[in-house]
Amino acid sequence: MQTPTITTHEEVMFFDTDCGGVVHNLAYLRMIETARTRLATKLGLNLREMAHTHLYPVLVRTEIDYRKPTKLGDELIIHGKLDSIERARFWCSFEMRRKDEDALLITCKQSLALVQMPQGKPMRLPADWKEKYAHLMAATMK
Amino acid sequence: MQTPTITTHEEVMFFDTDCGGVVHNLAYLRMIETARTRLATKLGLNLREMAHTHLYPVLVRTEIDYRKPTKLGDELIIHGKLDSIERARFWCSFEMRRKDEDALLITCKQSLALVQMPQGKPMRLPADWKEKYAHLMAATMK
Amino acid sequence: MQTPTITTHEEVMFFDTDCGGVVHNLAYLRMIETARTRLATKLGLNLREMAHTHLYPVLVRTEIDYRKPTKLGDELIIHGKLDSIERARFWCSFEMRRKDEDALLITCKQSLALVQMPQGKPMRLPADWKEKYAHLMAATMK
Amino acid sequence: MQTPTITTHEEVMFFDTDCGGVVHNLAYLRMIETARTRLATKLGLNLREMAHTHLYPVLVRTEIDYRKPTKLGDELIIHGKLDSIERARFWCSFEMRRKDEDALLITCKQSLALVQMPQGKPMRLPADWKEKYAHLMAATMK
Repeated sequence: MQTPTITTHEEVMFFDTDCGGVVHNLAYLRMIETARTRLATKLGLNLREMAHTHLYPVLVRTEIDYRKPTKLGDELIIHGKLDSIERARFWCSFEMRRKDEDALLITCKQSLALVQMPQGKPMRLPADWKEKYAHLMAATMK
Repeated sequence: MQTPTITTHEEVMFFDTDCGGVVHNLAYLRMIETARTRLATKLGLNLREMAHTHLYPVLVRTEIDYRKPTKLGDELIIHGKLDSIERARFWCSFEMRRKDEDALLITCKQSLALVQMPQGKPMRLPADWKEKYAHLMAATMK
Repeated sequence: MQTPTITTHEEVMFFDTDCGGVVHNLAYLRMIETARTRLATKLGLNLREMAHTHLYPVLVRTEIDYRKPTKLGDELIIHGKLDSIERARFWCSFEMRRKDEDALLITCKQSLALVQMPQGKPMRLPADWKEKYAHLMAATMK
Repeated sequence: MQTPTITTHEEVMFFDTDCGGVVHNLAYLRMIETARTRLATKLGLNLREMAHTHLYPVLVRTEIDYRKPTKLGDELIIHGKLDSIERARFWCSFEMRRKDEDALLITCKQSLALVQMPQGKPMRLPADWKEKYAHLMAATMK
């Protein structure tokens, strides 16, 4: 059984920084959203399909730790993975580092639900996740 | 006959600035969007109604001149007005100044169309605009 | 002894929403930053002074729960307060509701440090906070 | 003599869209900034160097036409080029299309100046641009 993972790359632009001279806290979360969206594609949640089905993965909770600052022009690498699965939610985690460096800059955990819009109705996770990601299921669900 | 106008106030936040130490070009356009949206309300285009009718004023063109920089904590005043009306488009203009100062910091012109979503169908401007804003109508339409 | 608090108001704009038809997760954190910045002013951390001293309150951790969605044109009220104080960090918490409604939409906790830029050196919290906010000090510091 | 050009790729994310179901006007300008920054690198204006020299290309004017809408998951291609050079300013232009499609979605022209921060002093363009980009020089400067 495999744990779905994703790696994305970002280069820090002016719009990512603030007048403190470092990357702004919101910019990291936008970068993480790009990684999360690509991870979701690997889980079978495709952006173009969502645009038609209106079944969206919706953020329920974010925990993010800003450990070290980054600067204009820095090349950042984001590693994300599916962490665990509950009946109607799943958790992902993300780590951000500078290219070719070990130091953790950002760590982040996010939980998501699948929601049918525009009604806003929470849906069960796809049935095949139970099998495919059995090793990631919360103990209470097994 | 009256020309619809709007005045909005903004205080420069960290998320508005970049590592050049000044406000980022995108931030001004977000501030102008707030002014434009409140101006649209005065034209009868109400945000909460739009959320139901899905008839939206859609930006067709922006021209913006960045004349002088602004900084963290600056208090900005945006003056907007309806400039002119065509059959299916209208133009607004915006000026931004620091509170209690005369110097123009930003000038901006934007043209908008009314579009019925999700089809993306351009609609005629409301019939009563012809009368209410006759003094703003393009010469070719009179 | 008083607990510093802040109340801010936001109206949901187009740039706050996404194609799911509801407000995007990043937009809430921008709104909370505005509240946090105004709360910081009450703590003596003034934006215009920061632009000169380069002593900034820097976000260390965010925890945010997205409880209920909001829509274009919604009028939101954000209540924030200083939660607790440690030697070199402080915690704030924020709650977001629709105007005239009780339901909690967003709850958020954030911890911050004071950092001297551009060196990025963490500084002690102002000496007078110990007295002013003694009731908010972590037990281990008393 | 060669005209500097750049091509960048973007995939439309949730944070790029609004509740009209299409990409928001500010998102295109963020995408164009990424292209512009990479074009600037080709002109010898490197992001990481800027972070140290504080000599920045600053946006002076933007003209952008929103021709056709785009949606969640669309793959966009941005072509940019150096258009012309004046004594203290230069113009770039950008075109955006969907991958494998001819239709122009967005066209944009932007002029920039080189500014030494934090003083905000406008600087002459690099001396060698006169030779390298002689074919792009405004008639009045030749």
